[in-house]
Amino acid sequence: MKVALIQFCSAQDKADNLKRATGMVQEALAQGARFVLLPEVFNFRAGADNKQILQEAAEPVPGPSVRAFFPLAQKYKACLLLGSIIEKAGAGYAYNTSVVIDSGGSISAKYRKIHLFDARLGDKIIREAGSFLPGNKITTVKIGEFRAGLSICYDVRFPGLYQRYARRGVEVLTVPSCFTKKTGQAHWETLLRARAIENLAYVLAPAQVGTDGRGIEAHGHSMIVSPWGEVTACGSPKGQEIVFGQIDLREVKKARQSLPGIIK
Amino acid sequence: MKVALIQFCSAQDKADNLKRATGMVQEALAQGARFVLLPEVFNFRAGADNKQILQEAAEPVPGPSVRAFFPLAQKYKACLLLGSIIEKAGAGYAYNTSVVIDSGGSISAKYRKIHLFDARLGDKIIREAGSFLPGNKITTVKIGEFRAGLSICYDVRFPGLYQRYARRGVEVLTVPSCFTKKTGQAHWETLLRARAIENLAYVLAPAQVGTDGRGIEAHGHSMIVSPWGEVTACGSPKGQEIVFGQIDLREVKKARQSLPGIIK
Repeated sequence: MKVALIQFCSAQDKADNLKRATGMVQEALAQGARFVLLPEVFNFRAGADNKQILQEAAEPVPGPSVRAFFPLAQKYKACLLLGSIIEKAGAGYAYNTSVVIDSGGSISAKYRKIHLFDARLGDKIIREAGSFLPGNKITTVKIGEFRAGLSICYDVRFPGLYQRYARRGVEVLTVPSCFTKKTGQAHWETLLRARAIENLAYVLAPAQVGTDGRGIEAHGHSMIVSPWGEVTACGSPKGQEIVFGQIDLREVKKARQSLPGIIK
Repeated sequence: MKVALIQFCSAQDKADNLKRATGMVQEALAQGARFVLLPEVFNFRAGADNKQILQEAAEPVPGPSVRAFFPLAQKYKACLLLGSIIEKAGAGYAYNTSVVIDSGGSISAKYRKIHLFDARLGDKIIREAGSFLPGNKITTVKIGEFRAGLSICYDVRFPGLYQRYARRGVEVLTVPSCFTKKTGQAHWETLLRARAIENLAYVLAPAQVGTDGRGIEAHGHSMIVSPWGEVTACGSPKGQEIVFGQIDLREVKKARQSLPGIIK
């Protein structure tokens, strides 16, 4: 199955983000991708501590940002992962929510980020919990012949989530992200590859790149990792692009036959 | 604290293994290391499927292979990790057991490998459970001002063990190993770095190198990883050597202050 990661740079103009994101998704679909993935906060990106403007950008699911992709999924009969949008929650908070659209153009899964980013990097304090509520449900979804387990960005630091997915029969792990450059350089590739190796599953990680004008520079390097832990495709450190790759159930089967005691 | 990993190639001559191992440990101690680590099966290495000869090599703890190191720890007032010996168990089985000797020359901890290697690599089937019984106790031990959590080789594929150690206040994770070259090239560095990053702890991983004459080539690359996930020292792919490095509690504290939500 041909897959495509949209490496993207979003900011605070939702209409512009949406226009550019639908354009890149359409291009990936036109080039034959059957599963196209957008990164975290693709429709609005402002830094986790800007509670008020995040609240203004929040939408229900489905809302306009999700609905904009229904016709594309339908037209191309392909699945889409909207890495995350800011989903309206109660009391001035939001959820950081991934939405999967199936090849019929309907929502087939929704995942609210469970682990909220909490970091002190140099003089910057980033506490996602100031603006967001955590999700509490792990979510798997059928993507063609694969089953995928959903996660977002900072979740990748918590290996137990991915082991639960593997025990539920998942062959693909999605990690749409907006990793900081600083932590990305130190941790991004290692953690993505470790999740693949520990679960002998594909990891698909579309990433934000560049800056949103208010926040911190993102790491780029959108990445596809094989079930044996090889990086089979990787985006650049800078600039938007579409990263294509292949996923193949036989590779999952082969890795799991080599190390039969891993998933339990 | 200066530490030393003994990158070692053992085979089926226990007396020779022990003579060479005590010699290298003495050299590391004489060069000022306060904590010296030997790899998995340093006193007898024969491939996990050779049940009978493993049984013949098995010892109680403490037995001759452990006692041989008491005088060195005493003389230099330093801690030693005997990465593993073949410990006698019932019914023709053995345990794969790490032993820690404290700076007074006494045993301060013992850990029996919990996850037994199980792999089909090309035409080789390796099933440690054919010769060994699994341990069932996680083990932490004081090493100078640090607390260490013990594990062995294939354990490194199971992240939950290390998270339990982090929750128990551990700052150092030990992973003495005899990794195959094939899986080592694909997974060794990534998994060691991931365990450090996930737990913001040092990882100390002394490794076997070369072949034992009956088994499979070992990966070498004995490795020290910082709590931020950097490889600060690494052995070669081939040949015995002593890999020196420093560990520093302030580095653990700094990493944990940067990402305060990780250990919970």
